[in-house]
Amino acid sequence: MTLKFGVIGTGAIGREHINRITNTLSGGKIVAVTDVNNEAVKSVIDEFQLDAAIFPDDHSVIKDPNVDAVLVTSWGPAHEHSVMAAIEAGKYVFCEKPLAATAEGCQRIVQAEMKQGKRLVQVGFMRRYDSGYVELKRVLDSHDIGEPLMIRCVHRNTSSNENYTSDMAVSDTLIHEIDVLHWLVNDEYQSVQVFFPKKTKHALGHLIDPQIFILETKAGIVIQAEVFVNCNYGYDIQCEVIGEDGVAHLPEVSSVVTRKEGKRSTEILVDWKLRFQDAYDKELQDFMDSIRKTGKPNGPSSWDGYIAAITSDACLKAQQTGEKELIQSVEKPVFYQNTPQLSFKQT
Amino acid sequence: MTLKFGVIGTGAIGREHINRITNTLSGGKIVAVTDVNNEAVKSVIDEFQLDAAIFPDDHSVIKDPNVDAVLVTSWGPAHEHSVMAAIEAGKYVFCEKPLAATAEGCQRIVQAEMKQGKRLVQVGFMRRYDSGYVELKRVLDSHDIGEPLMIRCVHRNTSSNENYTSDMAVSDTLIHEIDVLHWLVNDEYQSVQVFFPKKTKHALGHLIDPQIFILETKAGIVIQAEVFVNCNYGYDIQCEVIGEDGVAHLPEVSSVVTRKEGKRSTEILVDWKLRFQDAYDKELQDFMDSIRKTGKPNGPSSWDGYIAAITSDACLKAQQTGEKELIQSVEKPVFYQNTPQLSFKQT
Amino acid sequence: MTLKFGVIGTGAIGREHINRITNTLSGGKIVAVTDVNNEAVKSVIDEFQLDAAIFPDDHSVIKDPNVDAVLVTSWGPAHEHSVMAAIEAGKYVFCEKPLAATAEGCQRIVQAEMKQGKRLVQVGFMRRYDSGYVELKRVLDSHDIGEPLMIRCVHRNTSSNENYTSDMAVSDTLIHEIDVLHWLVNDEYQSVQVFFPKKTKHALGHLIDPQIFILETKAGIVIQAEVFVNCNYGYDIQCEVIGEDGVAHLPEVSSVVTRKEGKRSTEILVDWKLRFQDAYDKELQDFMDSIRKTGKPNGPSSWDGYIAAITSDACLKAQQTGEKELIQSVEKPVFYQNTPQLSFKQT
Amino acid sequence: MTLKFGVIGTGAIGREHINRITNTLSGGKIVAVTDVNNEAVKSVIDEFQLDAAIFPDDHSVIKDPNVDAVLVTSWGPAHEHSVMAAIEAGKYVFCEKPLAATAEGCQRIVQAEMKQGKRLVQVGFMRRYDSGYVELKRVLDSHDIGEPLMIRCVHRNTSSNENYTSDMAVSDTLIHEIDVLHWLVNDEYQSVQVFFPKKTKHALGHLIDPQIFILETKAGIVIQAEVFVNCNYGYDIQCEVIGEDGVAHLPEVSSVVTRKEGKRSTEILVDWKLRFQDAYDKELQDFMDSIRKTGKPNGPSSWDGYIAAITSDACLKAQQTGEKELIQSVEKPVFYQNTPQLSFKQT
Repeated sequence: MTLKFGVIGTGAIGREHINRITNTLSGGKIVAVTDVNNEAVKSVIDEFQLDAAIFPDDHSVIKDPNVDAVLVTSWGPAHEHSVMAAIEAGKYVFCEKPLAATAEGCQRIVQAEMKQGKRLVQVGFMRRYDSGYVELKRVLDSHDIGEPLMIRCVHRNTSSNENYTSDMAVSDTLIHEIDVLHWLVNDEYQSVQVFFPKKTKHALGHLIDPQIFILETKAGIVIQAEVFVNCNYGYDIQCEVIGEDGVAHLPEVSSVVTRKEGKRSTEILVDWKLRFQDAYDKELQDFMDSIRKTGKPNGPSSWDGYIAAITSDACLKAQQTGEKELIQSVEKPVFYQNTPQLSFKQT
Repeated sequence: MTLKFGVIGTGAIGREHINRITNTLSGGKIVAVTDVNNEAVKSVIDEFQLDAAIFPDDHSVIKDPNVDAVLVTSWGPAHEHSVMAAIEAGKYVFCEKPLAATAEGCQRIVQAEMKQGKRLVQVGFMRRYDSGYVELKRVLDSHDIGEPLMIRCVHRNTSSNENYTSDMAVSDTLIHEIDVLHWLVNDEYQSVQVFFPKKTKHALGHLIDPQIFILETKAGIVIQAEVFVNCNYGYDIQCEVIGEDGVAHLPEVSSVVTRKEGKRSTEILVDWKLRFQDAYDKELQDFMDSIRKTGKPNGPSSWDGYIAAITSDACLKAQQTGEKELIQSVEKPVFYQNTPQLSFKQT
Repeated sequence: MTLKFGVIGTGAIGREHINRITNTLSGGKIVAVTDVNNEAVKSVIDEFQLDAAIFPDDHSVIKDPNVDAVLVTSWGPAHEHSVMAAIEAGKYVFCEKPLAATAEGCQRIVQAEMKQGKRLVQVGFMRRYDSGYVELKRVLDSHDIGEPLMIRCVHRNTSSNENYTSDMAVSDTLIHEIDVLHWLVNDEYQSVQVFFPKKTKHALGHLIDPQIFILETKAGIVIQAEVFVNCNYGYDIQCEVIGEDGVAHLPEVSSVVTRKEGKRSTEILVDWKLRFQDAYDKELQDFMDSIRKTGKPNGPSSWDGYIAAITSDACLKAQQTGEKELIQSVEKPVFYQNTPQLSFKQT
Repeated sequence: MTLKFGVIGTGAIGREHINRITNTLSGGKIVAVTDVNNEAVKSVIDEFQLDAAIFPDDHSVIKDPNVDAVLVTSWGPAHEHSVMAAIEAGKYVFCEKPLAATAEGCQRIVQAEMKQGKRLVQVGFMRRYDSGYVELKRVLDSHDIGEPLMIRCVHRNTSSNENYTSDMAVSDTLIHEIDVLHWLVNDEYQSVQVFFPKKTKHALGHLIDPQIFILETKAGIVIQAEVFVNCNYGYDIQCEVIGEDGVAHLPEVSSVVTRKEGKRSTEILVDWKLRFQDAYDKELQDFMDSIRKTGKPNGPSSWDGYIAAITSDACLKAQQTGEKELIQSVEKPVFYQNTPQLSFKQT
């Protein structure tokens, strides 16, 4: 019952997914690959000793009858085209964020998937699979801390490179909070306002860093979300939900405690890739397992990709205006409501 | 070299200060007392076996030649009158917050003190004496975490009583953050905006709770300050300064760690009076010590009381408008600049 | 390049390993199964939909030419027989602890494996694969805390069942510390003494609980190891190494932090099976990966099983005598020295 | 109601006590001083501007009718003589540890005090006044963790000077654990055995360091007490009590938490004098307060000094023999039983 993958795009994230499907996870196999760069395709086949066919483009991968599921790991602007084609072919798709380059593109995918009649698409929002967030959601769902009223979260990176621009604070960084927070509290976004603190000397000239986003949800939760991509000390993801009866914090990353030179210390990750490595494994394993067991993917849906796009757009506008901007209100179709949020069991 | 105190007001906080001067601290003595309630005066003299004269009003206490310093612990609206009289008499004053009921009243005190020519007044902002804040300031002043860019703080009480109103979130609660934060980062406030999250079911009908204040300073620091007076789980004061090179958090209150029934726990204070008890001792001991050693008080000045009043006013306005409100900019007179912020040594 | 397993014993641990090889890990497959209980074999084949042959006994499994590696998960007294047969057949063996019922049995296995000429056997000491111990070893190997001088560790279970006897504190419980600690500090055991504290009321009549073992190594490290299997509050594994320049602690298990009802709490596991679940996955994945890449298993060897048996024997004797008992000194053969301790990379 | 002190010995600890009575605490006054070094006496009177008479020897201080209480801070071998004289004169005595140089000397003091008929003596075991130990005792006394079965504690100093010898690990260092632990669990010592781990390279040639003492109490509690006076990283006092229903740990010293350079850190004290500073204040304030309120001191008694001496002697013998040594069993006289252990209230 092996799920056979066709891979579109063999850049960094594509190679990582190929590696985990081939060498770490159970139940999947890479059978087809394409990339605009021919050398990249060949090197990945060599490196992981894949028994996979090379195709000239995404369409031919998708049409290969040997392919059960398509892994879209090309660059963002190309995602919509591949996902639409896969839906039309009735094939499963695991698509890295963003689902499409625009909210309209996401909407088109949502409509195509609904028309096609069956959930096929999962978007690569891996945080929902992180054991810390899963445990945090379990605590919230148990009503141990009562109704959530506020969220404080931070997303800090040690440093950003020269290609990182102020709008990427939303599209590349905050996007993960945007997806995971509304899932965490079963709520929808209503408005956003941005504050720009004093800029750190460690940020390059063109970049506004840090930034603080105040998001409000329909239920009235106020979210204080800090994005700080040149914090200089490590990769640090924090999330704290303040409820009517108590507070729950995302766990700190586990680390050896040392006592040395007058300090009691734990390590903070510096390399962001290590933080969500297990979550990346689990999202793909769950994609395979839920298709095998239920015939459809179980993780973040096209609708979640669409919500993320709408919310991003408002955040980007709020960066420009400095005012409180409304976030477009959309009604979740029954098609996506019926999807269980995440039956995935943490162990 | 005992400092002889005349006490104006023997309510709860007055009795506590009388007790600590008499039974805990070194170098002070209560020699005169007044209160609008005669019984209260007598009971306090009995309880603490004071060798103190009873006076009919604040003026007669202040004028008593036996009195070196006046302790103003009457109700807020009466403070200005007593402080002004003490300044005119050239006597030291320790005045509980607020220094005066209005910013104008504070300004009159500032002008009177400057005219009188010598620092006489200390305001009871005790947090500057809390060992946690003192250590936090030491870390900031050492530039260990670089220039401060953001502050996140929370002020949570287990529950509020029926007399607590939404504006008291500023005048009684946030006022402590207002005083201590600008001292902590050596900066001045510029604007404030308020967000009202979903109200907790534990708050009474008339009360808006929690509230989030976003303050911006002249240097560009953005402060996210949560006031939540019915948080239901304890008295919890948090403060975290995010700098260019790292982050520093106010210490959690020290507590035995237990492992029991599947949980590893420390205790959170529920009674707020315990949290700053040492700070109350230290502010009064420092008041006495610095007068003995330098001839003037060393703690929060009339100017600090004035700044707190101006900032409070803007916060109260922001509660009404929902908009970003500017905080009046005032130039610190040389008279107050020369005063060392706090030479008080933590041990 | 799939490693084909023959499984001997389908009790609890056998089923778990079958499940992880089939549904979680990459590169292995169950092709043959035997158990003294025929129903158990059939139910496991059904449950996991195995495409596996059923055999009447261990010998027939081992001899099946389709089998590359033997998984020994029968009851302890039967281990030696199956392991010896697998070695004679030149097949890889993953054997749950104990390697054999006696130190002599372990010695026979060691000799057979050396005679056979190639490392074939891995013993199921999974703690060496736990990310916490791996990180702790990394810190020790980096000399960050200097030469180790002392170790303090505890092994606590919530409660023990009626079949658990005082000697099982060594053979079932301390055995894990015995294996992991000498690996952690690259040292060998020299002596052991036992102390019996006041017995907990939660232990059954026949059981001595808790027990404290003081072990000394050849390099002079003193290990204080507490075994307490009715601690009543959770499953708690602690380990702290005190070196010349500092101290390193095994991380606490990561958990959401809650603030509620006057307490700041994290959860302690109660179910021991959750604690080392990842380590069980990793030990078997590493067994498969290292055989695929290097032709031999990389984890705890027969020699480690032998050392554990010798050390256990001395601990059991010390329980009887109350005196300091010497632990038999044995020279590690070159055959086992050449084996890298653990090239397994933590990510 | 000021308690007037005569001070015998103005070395380091003497000066500190004079300072705190004069400048920090309430209700005491230094009125008489003596020291073998005349210059020391004069300088202390100058430094603290004491209004105190200088006497040639301990007897003349004790006999001065102006003196209510004697503070014995001379060197250890002289303590017994001064304490005996004070008892004979019916004066209160606060004596630094040791109460006397030998167990026999302590016994003589106990007998003299009983004969005199009233509790007069308090020994300077300040840990009983440390807020952490007080809170720990409160948890134990509340039976939150059930009956205590084991204690794990460490006493680590950054480094020791050249005068520190292996027996001082008992007489100067472990002595504090000896006093505080039996008080903590209301129990008495029965035996002790010593283990000598590998010596740290940071210890001087003549010194055995670290050392591990295993003490057993009459109730069967096993105490694992580590003394490590060249641990190289800080002054670190730990204490953990393992009970039938849970575990309670002495709090870590409170400190700002920083996130910087890939580490999340709190500070460990390096200077031991800071650790118990508050406890030193509280023991002397309690000495004064309890004499004022009840006519007798309330803290560690002569009997506690005697128990400490007996236990020390056994520990020193165990260092020599390497065997388990019995600790002399003595019956607590009613005279000392009636003394409340510590009515002192922590706030």
